[in-house]
Amino acid sequence: MIATLPRIAVTMGDPAGVGPELCLRLLHDPGVTGHCIPVVFGDAGVLQRVSAATGVPLVAPTISRDRWADVHRGLDRPAVLDLHCIRADEVTPGRVDARCGAAAFQYVMASIDAALAGQVAGVSTGPLNKAALHAAGHPFPGHTEIFAQRMGVERFCMMQYSEQVTCSFVTVHVGYHEVPALLNPPRILDVIELTGDALRRIRGREPRLLVCGLNPHAGEGGLFGQGEEERLIAPAVEQARARGWDVTGPVPGDTAFIPAARQQYDAVVCMYHDQGHIPVKMIAFDSAVNTTLGLPVPRTSVDHGTAFDIAWQGRANPGSLFSAVRLAVKLSSC
Amino acid sequence: MIATLPRIAVTMGDPAGVGPELCLRLLHDPGVTGHCIPVVFGDAGVLQRVSAATGVPLVAPTISRDRWADVHRGLDRPAVLDLHCIRADEVTPGRVDARCGAAAFQYVMASIDAALAGQVAGVSTGPLNKAALHAAGHPFPGHTEIFAQRMGVERFCMMQYSEQVTCSFVTVHVGYHEVPALLNPPRILDVIELTGDALRRIRGREPRLLVCGLNPHAGEGGLFGQGEEERLIAPAVEQARARGWDVTGPVPGDTAFIPAARQQYDAVVCMYHDQGHIPVKMIAFDSAVNTTLGLPVPRTSVDHGTAFDIAWQGRANPGSLFSAVRLAVKLSSC
Repeated sequence: MIATLPRIAVTMGDPAGVGPELCLRLLHDPGVTGHCIPVVFGDAGVLQRVSAATGVPLVAPTISRDRWADVHRGLDRPAVLDLHCIRADEVTPGRVDARCGAAAFQYVMASIDAALAGQVAGVSTGPLNKAALHAAGHPFPGHTEIFAQRMGVERFCMMQYSEQVTCSFVTVHVGYHEVPALLNPPRILDVIELTGDALRRIRGREPRLLVCGLNPHAGEGGLFGQGEEERLIAPAVEQARARGWDVTGPVPGDTAFIPAARQQYDAVVCMYHDQGHIPVKMIAFDSAVNTTLGLPVPRTSVDHGTAFDIAWQGRANPGSLFSAVRLAVKLSSC
Repeated sequence: MIATLPRIAVTMGDPAGVGPELCLRLLHDPGVTGHCIPVVFGDAGVLQRVSAATGVPLVAPTISRDRWADVHRGLDRPAVLDLHCIRADEVTPGRVDARCGAAAFQYVMASIDAALAGQVAGVSTGPLNKAALHAAGHPFPGHTEIFAQRMGVERFCMMQYSEQVTCSFVTVHVGYHEVPALLNPPRILDVIELTGDALRRIRGREPRLLVCGLNPHAGEGGLFGQGEEERLIAPAVEQARARGWDVTGPVPGDTAFIPAARQQYDAVVCMYHDQGHIPVKMIAFDSAVNTTLGLPVPRTSVDHGTAFDIAWQGRANPGSLFSAVRLAVKLSSC
């Protein structure tokens, strides 16, 4: 008896970006295919054209949309789910195009439907081009919001995972000035618990969590700021501790990421985008994985963009996508 | 003929902290004494007691306050300026004490007077304990503000310097929510130019500067925030460029510190405390130097606190103070 490997949907991302060539590499990477059955949600025609342009062979069989419901359970190797959203000759590599944005959005929608139908155990998403997405009439800031809205989830958060440092976020894609009003104990407690749940799956043990303050020196006892640390963050940390989590904070943002802290803690709960994205991009630029916690199935993503300047040249580093798929497998195994 | 080495005042910091033992080590470090004549501004009695406690000998001669004006020009080796601010037997290592805060403040005042009188070419400051300083009736957030106020300087900024990454700050010790209202093009232009001046001295060539945005993704073309990037930061960058500076930005905070950017740029102008302190503390925890730019003489400082938990034990790492003094020498040589 061999345990069945989990199926992971991998969306192809914007057809004009580096997503297609990363998917081609993924389909025959033993580090990935040894742990799951990746299914690329995209356009087979585009993959074939990118394969010809880059010399990376397309090794997986193609499944049409109408056969998917019947065959997905029997899949025992990597595959491409051909969604026929855009013709290969319509795509100009490296160009912002509403048709590409529309196709990329459809790949994501199909992956969400498959996840909600229990057809895949997790989703890893290739890079979207936001301008193309918006030009196609989908004004989302990113994948996180698409998944949360489509899946009807309100209690969710973004996490950036890497071996070196992991950060989750109480607020993410909002203006700097909006952050203080968005902080409150229930939201901070939610993010602490979502982070704890995820790290428990990843590490296979009780995780140690650190929570950042908002102000310089975490407010230094009320000297800086409006008492956000005492009024909003500390109460959430206390509640989390009362529920059994091993959590410390609020600590100053600039001490949360020093080498000793990176050794000691499994993840850092951050109050705003740059507080966690600066450290993650500094030391895990090529390997960090973006994930949305709180969804019915785990969703992970590359931590880079469409890289239009090197699209279809075979030069894009697939490390982040490989890491994203491996993390989706870990998060789904529970 | 031998060129005279610059005299650098080194304040002893809080007597109950690690400042005294760091000064003892400094006085016979050839990496420091080969490039300047350090003069410790402090209490000889405290240094003698810390020397006995730690086993680090006090090798330098002592100068009394009333002889200083006459002898400073003839100094050709490290020395201690004995300011008689506190008796050694009044000091309990590791304890917050208003008398220690008062003494530490007096060392700083004496160093400022010496700098303004042209008696020293620069000042490096040992660590203050803020609670002791405040208990002594000096409600300053830190050295930067003491120097700026006492020297009557309004155009100044903090910079954190290290070999790996260097950041200067448009705002520093203010609450998170106060930052947007403190940003304006003249202030940002000042910080760009102060940073450029300093890096020109340090590198001996025209520096390449990077300027961060405020919002996630530097606002992403107005999507996040209140247009601070377009209204406030970009105009300052344009003006700096028109004045001949090699400056790029505003760029997202989380791309300003990736490895490629750290290779390419000499310094990063940050909008707020944690934007620059997170990266500096992450990769230059033991070696970063805090400096105040815009003063009549350069002022540098250790990048750590009084470390009361290990005070007078001889275990404190003097690397940051050594770096601070070397940087003061570089900044003074112009």
